[in-house]
Amino acid sequence: MLSEFDLIARYFTRLPRSGGPVMLGVGDDCALLAPAAGESLAISTDMLVEGRHFFAGADAQALGHKALAVNLSDLAAMGARPLGFTLALALPAADPAWLEPFARGLLTLADAHDIALVGGDTTRGPLNLCITVFGSVPFAQALRRDGAHADDEIWISGTLGDARLALEALQGKLTLTSDRLAIAQLRLDCPQPRNALGIALRGIATAAIDISDGLLGDLGHLLERSGVGAVLDADALPFGAMLSLEPPERCRAFALNGGDDYELCFAAPAQCRQAVLDAALQAGVAVARIGRLTRERGIRVTDSAGTPLTVDSLSFDHFATP
Amino acid sequence: MLSEFDLIARYFTRLPRSGGPVMLGVGDDCALLAPAAGESLAISTDMLVEGRHFFAGADAQALGHKALAVNLSDLAAMGARPLGFTLALALPAADPAWLEPFARGLLTLADAHDIALVGGDTTRGPLNLCITVFGSVPFAQALRRDGAHADDEIWISGTLGDARLALEALQGKLTLTSDRLAIAQLRLDCPQPRNALGIALRGIATAAIDISDGLLGDLGHLLERSGVGAVLDADALPFGAMLSLEPPERCRAFALNGGDDYELCFAAPAQCRQAVLDAALQAGVAVARIGRLTRERGIRVTDSAGTPLTVDSLSFDHFATP
Repeated sequence: MLSEFDLIARYFTRLPRSGGPVMLGVGDDCALLAPAAGESLAISTDMLVEGRHFFAGADAQALGHKALAVNLSDLAAMGARPLGFTLALALPAADPAWLEPFARGLLTLADAHDIALVGGDTTRGPLNLCITVFGSVPFAQALRRDGAHADDEIWISGTLGDARLALEALQGKLTLTSDRLAIAQLRLDCPQPRNALGIALRGIATAAIDISDGLLGDLGHLLERSGVGAVLDADALPFGAMLSLEPPERCRAFALNGGDDYELCFAAPAQCRQAVLDAALQAGVAVARIGRLTRERGIRVTDSAGTPLTVDSLSFDHFATP
Repeated sequence: MLSEFDLIARYFTRLPRSGGPVMLGVGDDCALLAPAAGESLAISTDMLVEGRHFFAGADAQALGHKALAVNLSDLAAMGARPLGFTLALALPAADPAWLEPFARGLLTLADAHDIALVGGDTTRGPLNLCITVFGSVPFAQALRRDGAHADDEIWISGTLGDARLALEALQGKLTLTSDRLAIAQLRLDCPQPRNALGIALRGIATAAIDISDGLLGDLGHLLERSGVGAVLDADALPFGAMLSLEPPERCRAFALNGGDDYELCFAAPAQCRQAVLDAALQAGVAVARIGRLTRERGIRVTDSAGTPLTVDSLSFDHFATP
């Protein structure tokens, strides 16, 4: 059996890049991080629990990727540049056959974003992954939830609903061919956080949030914080490639109430339309304009002709759903 | 049943103090924190698991205190001033009878250190508390583990071993009267992080570590990082008030291999002896000089006459012990 310290040393210790923001990495009581002069430190934490956020026996490499990706997505939604992260890990046993691919998935994504694992904790216990991620952003340019105004346009990055499609197929609630499932499952297992887009939207978007629990629910948080409502055009929603082959009702339902999309939903004034498209081009991410903000509270969903649709407005809640 | 968002709002949302380091607290994708100009951000994370770090059914208020205290202790060992923290919490159920006292224990200690809960995550799952804490320290004054030199003197704050004494009594491995247990258990359940001392030792201590897994094991990490060894005087060890009533062998064993002490062990040059005592006085914490660092690697323990003692050198390891 590996000891706790062997474990940390073997799989998770890396020297921080010299000249980068990490002054001191793994191996002391604390890590030391220096955000650029004049920038604020953006911080977010997410905990993933076996049986709740992923299936027991889930692929360890995909899990390593996803645990970091969902945290990076929070930085993206703030327009913050990723600097580093900590990992706290409870494991039933220190099993190299699990740790090696987990660390590979985690650190490959970290390398892709040029960030370091700066510290952590490992302990024995029911499988639980808690990552806290750090980024930097000039305070005045942070993409908060509370900056949107009535008449701003609503945008979404990428596509929605394929992760939910894969989840329901894996739960046996619907049937997909194996190759369609494989493609949809990539969206569930390997979300791509939109950090480049978040940074490109500084000074353009008035508010942003990442879509982790479903568009309606997460947009609802943004609306509440900004004190506005929204009208969404269901015919403008960008469906996932695999979802788009399903019946129209399912497409709309899963795009509006998906979960695990990890796309950015953001607001921008109508006169910034071209700037938004330029930012998306620069970041290499598709964006779609899906509605506008209103003084009237609540979310109304219409078709492209403006006819109101009724939708199930429930979003995913970790405690309300059994 | 409370929803996840009700839960966060009811127990954990507080407005950050205006003019403090927290620019944006709970309720957005990230918190925004601004360390003082020219200071580094110190970061540490600790995960506490039921049945591993605390007994099932442990008092929720004490647990709230301890979860934050052990993290603050890492900042203390770095000489960093606490700024804020995040909390990720997996709970079997959203039970107000547990959450209310837990939040009280947590936030009372946070208030005592004038820091804010800046963000977090709650989910359903086996009870697991993961706190990440943030502090600030001028980089050149951080109390790292790797700055000690041969001939520096070794110091320890407070007293050692009462937490281990309480643990063994609770496990039925030894017997204590109920009032002695109650006092010793305060050290196990309500550790007092030594942040004022850590800050006062900036520019004086050459290296520091907090004692969470036992003096010998944790001092060993400091020695390894600094490339030195140590001679400890067992007769100079400050025993906990309840431990000191036990037989001498138990006193030494529990002081050297205790665990859960959360005292600071630090090194300082002999010419700084008065400065160390002044810092301790300023912080209101007792300190004891317990040995010195040596060029020769390893830890030797002697009595006050310099006669070598043999000690069980095992420290607590979350994976090596069943």
